[in-house]
Amino acid sequence: MDTGFVAALGDWRTRSEPLARALAAAVREAVIDGRLPAGTRLPSERELARALRLSRGTVVAALSLLRADGWLRTRHGSGSAVRLPARLTERTSPWSLDRGGAPGADLDLTLAVTAAPHDAYRAALARAAELSGPLLVDSGTATVGLPRLRALLADRYTRAGLATRPEQILVTAGAQAALTLLLDQLHTDRTAPVLVENPAYPGALAVLRARRARLLPLPVTTPDGWDTAHLAATVRRHRPRLAYLVPDFHNPTGAHMDTATRREVAALADRHELTVIADETMRELDLRTPPGAEPHLAGARVIQIGSTSKILWSGLRVGWLRATAELVRQLRLNPLQAQLAPPPLEQLIAAELLGAPLPDLLADRRARLRAQRDHLAGLLAGTGWTYTVPAGGLTLWLRLDGTGPRATDLAARAAARGLALTPGPRFAADRTTLTRHLRLPFTATPETLTRAVELLRACCTV
Amino acid sequence: MDTGFVAALGDWRTRSEPLARALAAAVREAVIDGRLPAGTRLPSERELARALRLSRGTVVAALSLLRADGWLRTRHGSGSAVRLPARLTERTSPWSLDRGGAPGADLDLTLAVTAAPHDAYRAALARAAELSGPLLVDSGTATVGLPRLRALLADRYTRAGLATRPEQILVTAGAQAALTLLLDQLHTDRTAPVLVENPAYPGALAVLRARRARLLPLPVTTPDGWDTAHLAATVRRHRPRLAYLVPDFHNPTGAHMDTATRREVAALADRHELTVIADETMRELDLRTPPGAEPHLAGARVIQIGSTSKILWSGLRVGWLRATAELVRQLRLNPLQAQLAPPPLEQLIAAELLGAPLPDLLADRRARLRAQRDHLAGLLAGTGWTYTVPAGGLTLWLRLDGTGPRATDLAARAAARGLALTPGPRFAADRTTLTRHLRLPFTATPETLTRAVELLRACCTV
Repeated sequence: MDTGFVAALGDWRTRSEPLARALAAAVREAVIDGRLPAGTRLPSERELARALRLSRGTVVAALSLLRADGWLRTRHGSGSAVRLPARLTERTSPWSLDRGGAPGADLDLTLAVTAAPHDAYRAALARAAELSGPLLVDSGTATVGLPRLRALLADRYTRAGLATRPEQILVTAGAQAALTLLLDQLHTDRTAPVLVENPAYPGALAVLRARRARLLPLPVTTPDGWDTAHLAATVRRHRPRLAYLVPDFHNPTGAHMDTATRREVAALADRHELTVIADETMRELDLRTPPGAEPHLAGARVIQIGSTSKILWSGLRVGWLRATAELVRQLRLNPLQAQLAPPPLEQLIAAELLGAPLPDLLADRRARLRAQRDHLAGLLAGTGWTYTVPAGGLTLWLRLDGTGPRATDLAARAAARGLALTPGPRFAADRTTLTRHLRLPFTATPETLTRAVELLRACCTV
Repeated sequence: MDTGFVAALGDWRTRSEPLARALAAAVREAVIDGRLPAGTRLPSERELARALRLSRGTVVAALSLLRADGWLRTRHGSGSAVRLPARLTERTSPWSLDRGGAPGADLDLTLAVTAAPHDAYRAALARAAELSGPLLVDSGTATVGLPRLRALLADRYTRAGLATRPEQILVTAGAQAALTLLLDQLHTDRTAPVLVENPAYPGALAVLRARRARLLPLPVTTPDGWDTAHLAATVRRHRPRLAYLVPDFHNPTGAHMDTATRREVAALADRHELTVIADETMRELDLRTPPGAEPHLAGARVIQIGSTSKILWSGLRVGWLRATAELVRQLRLNPLQAQLAPPPLEQLIAAELLGAPLPDLLADRRARLRAQRDHLAGLLAGTGWTYTVPAGGLTLWLRLDGTGPRATDLAARAAARGLALTPGPRFAADRTTLTRHLRLPFTATPETLTRAVELLRACCTV
């Protein structure tokens, strides 16, 4: 008998459960940790019992538990093999949100992310492996991006009404990497302020703070969106050279910039020589039926950045920017570009997924997110907290009532009971305001959301 | 007939070559671009002739050319299929160096990189694909690194005499990413200077300059190594809190720090509360026979960083740092960490390659590099240029004689003749000195090195 199976289980007898349950749990964990790849054959029941020094009845009981939960595939005549249960691979919510990914938290609502589209990713990976030969004989060092991926991205912009040549695309290791590179290239006068939304995406704030950029906050609220009068006044008064905006399903508020505002922002940018970096990471997570038709935020002074992290999977770490071909040429010479380029294999996988499979994957993802958003909104009814149901994206921006605890207190209380949350000040340009707000992602399953909101309500009444 | 093959060739008739040569070139490029994956079957000669409207003789001639160059595999009775020639997959030198990867350059000696270990990478990728299931149902967001990879790296340090727990390892998207993260965490007083070698690795200089760090240069020369008297005086006088050093086969000089100097540096760091970041990216490219036995540069105030880029492949983009478990915990909370973490799939591939296959891969790589280094040294004999044959690493640091052109002039002349080179000032902390130096990587094949040195010598006599 091949003893690899038994060795992969490790020291499982130290568990305090009954033996059959402990054995089943050990098999599950070995599959999750990758010690037993899906498809690994099990020894026969008799062999297992002998190798593990268990009664055959205990082994049979353990295998029954695994089979009932979907961890075993049994084919008549060819024995059993381990697998990942279908309920884990056919889902939008990532595993770690449901089992409580953050250390010490049973429920983690700090991440607004989804699991990978399992079958499509596996197929893309297999195809990328087939195509990888020519990459491997190359140096693997940074380029502007695989020609195929640049062409595909340019074509997607062009079809969406924004004529784009492949030379205008630079592939990066995610949208934050694109922002880092753009700041290094364009934010050369470091005393000049950078305009950001308030609240803003914390990842972008981190990048800006790492460069010690002075931040000019522009208020964004869920019901009213971007305060363009404030924007115009700020631009005239402080003369920022750069702005970072999330016009499509803004993180965290979910606000969506209307067509007139997009035109106004682009015109203002032109007039005041303001370069706008428009983060479109959420753009394709439009949950309206039918989806809206707002154009890209675009213009001579607008640079678009995007990523696969929200529409496909964070684990890909593939993003891009769209700018003039001249700026892309300059960025290619920036010494930071080399460390901000994604691995060629991930680019191949992204190119596969962003092609033919994407429309179905997005349709599926949108349907699930819409259901989860509506479920979350239902749970919040009657709480006294206010919010606008977001038209897209992954998060709901909650305003607590004025009488209860503040967001940071509430988050601390929730953390003590095993629920991790991100309070408003994390999204504030000044780090201290927005104390009455919480961001709730609806990327978790309805069951997780139900448990989370119950816990949250209980924390308020303590 | 499947018309995919013909479609993948694109518009190949626009070439000015004879038809048979043009067709062969189109097939080669389709394989290189990944439009025709290795293993794709060719239609029969008769079908191809008909589909391409060519005489059968032309098709036969094109296929003969491809077969002679190793681009076709023909099995009796089952027709022909495209493949990558073995000479491309069984090599250390990356493809782009030999065909001239830089735009406009026939010969590119600006990169010190190698091709991927083809067969081992393909096997690791296949195994990673098998193990990827559990990753895909997770969120894919940044972690400190896959448990398996952290354990493996900790074990490698421990076996090399530097006791290390997995909690002391943070996996990053390359060594430069590790440096970026460490600077953000530790270089908090931005008026404090950072000690760097002179010459220094340009990638590290770029990261330091992006933070506007004030640089304190420490001279390193090939024959004498690190100037420790200068180091001690500089530390006492300028009190830097941080130093970035490459003690193992320093890039570009190839200098290697002896055991006594390592102890001195660690003691100095302790005494003056100086944190030393030791970049060990080249450490395992020891070309001495037998290899040396210098210990890691280590101590209470030394952080080691490493990467797969030079020992395996730049395309992996997997690096790491080794620090105290407490610092790793703090770095995990740094908001920049999320964008500096490598994709989980690349970590799986790296873990496969850094395990059982590594010793053979390194032995093979060292043997090839040693032969290429010696070939390069032979070519330089009698040029009047001086150098020390490096004991390891990937590059030779050439000092031009005082009478000929300076390095930047020489590089400009060489570029005009299709040879791309990196002149000394690129490695200078002040960007302007080291004008008599050139870095020559010996990662290219002997044929490429021969052509490059011939061209270089011709440029000097113009």
